[in-house]
Amino acid sequence: MISFTSKNLHSFVRKIFLSINTPEKDAEIATNVLLQADLKGIDSHGVARLSGYVRQWELGKLNSNPKISIIHQTPSTAVVDGDSGLGLVIAHYAMQIAIEKAEKVGTGWVAVRNSGHFGIAGHHALKAVEKDMIGWAMTHASALAVPTYSKEKLLGTNPICLAVPAGKYQPFVADFASTAAAYGKLQILQRKNENAPWGWVQDKNGMPTQNPHAPRLGGALLPLGSDDEHGSHKGYCLGAMVDILSGVLSGANFGPFVPPFATSGDTQERQPPVGLGTGHFFGAMSIDAFQTKEEFKKRMDIWIEVFKNAKAIQGKKVWIPGEPEFENAIFREKNGIPLVEAVVKDLEKLAEKFGEPLY
Amino acid sequence: MISFTSKNLHSFVRKIFLSINTPEKDAEIATNVLLQADLKGIDSHGVARLSGYVRQWELGKLNSNPKISIIHQTPSTAVVDGDSGLGLVIAHYAMQIAIEKAEKVGTGWVAVRNSGHFGIAGHHALKAVEKDMIGWAMTHASALAVPTYSKEKLLGTNPICLAVPAGKYQPFVADFASTAAAYGKLQILQRKNENAPWGWVQDKNGMPTQNPHAPRLGGALLPLGSDDEHGSHKGYCLGAMVDILSGVLSGANFGPFVPPFATSGDTQERQPPVGLGTGHFFGAMSIDAFQTKEEFKKRMDIWIEVFKNAKAIQGKKVWIPGEPEFENAIFREKNGIPLVEAVVKDLEKLAEKFGEPLY
Repeated sequence: MISFTSKNLHSFVRKIFLSINTPEKDAEIATNVLLQADLKGIDSHGVARLSGYVRQWELGKLNSNPKISIIHQTPSTAVVDGDSGLGLVIAHYAMQIAIEKAEKVGTGWVAVRNSGHFGIAGHHALKAVEKDMIGWAMTHASALAVPTYSKEKLLGTNPICLAVPAGKYQPFVADFASTAAAYGKLQILQRKNENAPWGWVQDKNGMPTQNPHAPRLGGALLPLGSDDEHGSHKGYCLGAMVDILSGVLSGANFGPFVPPFATSGDTQERQPPVGLGTGHFFGAMSIDAFQTKEEFKKRMDIWIEVFKNAKAIQGKKVWIPGEPEFENAIFREKNGIPLVEAVVKDLEKLAEKFGEPLY
Repeated sequence: MISFTSKNLHSFVRKIFLSINTPEKDAEIATNVLLQADLKGIDSHGVARLSGYVRQWELGKLNSNPKISIIHQTPSTAVVDGDSGLGLVIAHYAMQIAIEKAEKVGTGWVAVRNSGHFGIAGHHALKAVEKDMIGWAMTHASALAVPTYSKEKLLGTNPICLAVPAGKYQPFVADFASTAAAYGKLQILQRKNENAPWGWVQDKNGMPTQNPHAPRLGGALLPLGSDDEHGSHKGYCLGAMVDILSGVLSGANFGPFVPPFATSGDTQERQPPVGLGTGHFFGAMSIDAFQTKEEFKKRMDIWIEVFKNAKAIQGKKVWIPGEPEFENAIFREKNGIPLVEAVVKDLEKLAEKFGEPLY
């Protein structure tokens, strides 16, 4: 574990994005999204992904200087084509469009196609919160998970995020995958050679297993709920909703056709595609399209206080969604961002490749 | 178990609604929502609830002839006050407003306050599908479930529904609660004096238990995901999202302040209230605000075929969300709606009370 200041990492990551011909403004945007993930402790979605984006570019699958365009729109909606650019950047522009529409007609909803991995959903949804709006962000991803009763992987971990402004407290940020466990958690167990808890994965016959390697051996991640007795069809529903809004509605691929990210380990691309690249879906709802901002924030503060002060199980604490991540960010901004050896090595290789010092 | 034709039940239920002074048009709407639930096999939300609505009316908590009004609006949003009317009816009007807005500016979003139990979310969301729109419906309910690590019940089963039109197939209808198990499933175990599976409920100290009576003994339902190792914070996030959109944004109560339904067994009302009655949230997104209806439906049909034809676990089948309910409806429309003895007795009492023959 080596610790980096966010400032140092920011400067390095930005230079790498510039090195693959990302325009300055976009390099700044992309760097901010990745750094936010590391600061917040969502390490799997931060600089650990940088070499993956570079690899996509090297494979000719990433257009680092895309023409992002609106394909179709109404006063409250738009479909955006990302021109195979960085998802991190496309998501930013799409969210801005949603916000502009919300300023005019109360809400804005943007479906995106021809994009790639967009980083953490929460970062994008929080852009709406800065404007006193409720932000939505979701994305599908390449298939690692099964619908209930399926042996075949058809859905990604498909996260959904809702970010809501509050008054004196940090915003409420629910940002979660629709599977029982994140793939990153399995990877940690793989490295440690430890078993996964029951309910995280199934084997190639769809039977329960504790093998953390199962998804690479014909098995799969299980939907949130784990099995039918505990509501896995609900996790399946959630993953499917995200897939339909991000993929079917946008004109992107969907289900098992969603293209893999370069570092996902899953290199199969299902042919022929059913649409253009990866898709996302964003929403912005202006608070004052429903009630005054002041009244709403007062009410949100009460909500947060009631939940924060809930009687907790012995030795535990009831968290407000997003609260642990805001606490992490304060801590890491001050004490540095610890990176595991594998990620540091990855960054060192990029440093060498592009002649940009990491230290 | 006694079987009724949907026509007979419809006529009876409608007359009971008329007997409590519901206007004709509203009685028809309310009856349709309840009957849809019974036809689709969601028995807990059908005519089994009728005596509960009557009881609310007798307690003076239900205004059977409400003035439903728009409190505030923008081109794509509205806040609706239900004037303490039947949730079944208020939801209908709110969804119509969402649809009208979507016709004009692409999408419509309606937050509702001062309402009550609205029946099955899917019925309301499907109203948008009839207009070639994607429908959203969600509602909070009185607190039966805990956030992760809480001993205190702060959230209802808070269901969310997304309904999506398809071409040659029935619509996709994801309609699910944010708890691991529905309360109705526990009630069945209570009657049979059987244990609940681990992961459905906790006891008053927040410890795992199999006692199906736990929620009435200071315990609670667990969020989808069941425990922290299996992502219960995700179920908590989902329940909280539904509560914030239905309650905080609409001006209704929220969290533990949501008033109980007359038959929920949970009769405490948390005082003072933080808003008006129960809340819901609806959305309608016009398909052609994103792409042509024809192209979208073709794509949705492919999505459905890919999932329908997934390789299934031995002896199982991969379901499309909503598919089992559509199959039930066809079967029950033809073969009758079977009602358990307790529900039949309830209806017989109503028949006697209002002088309306059940048979």
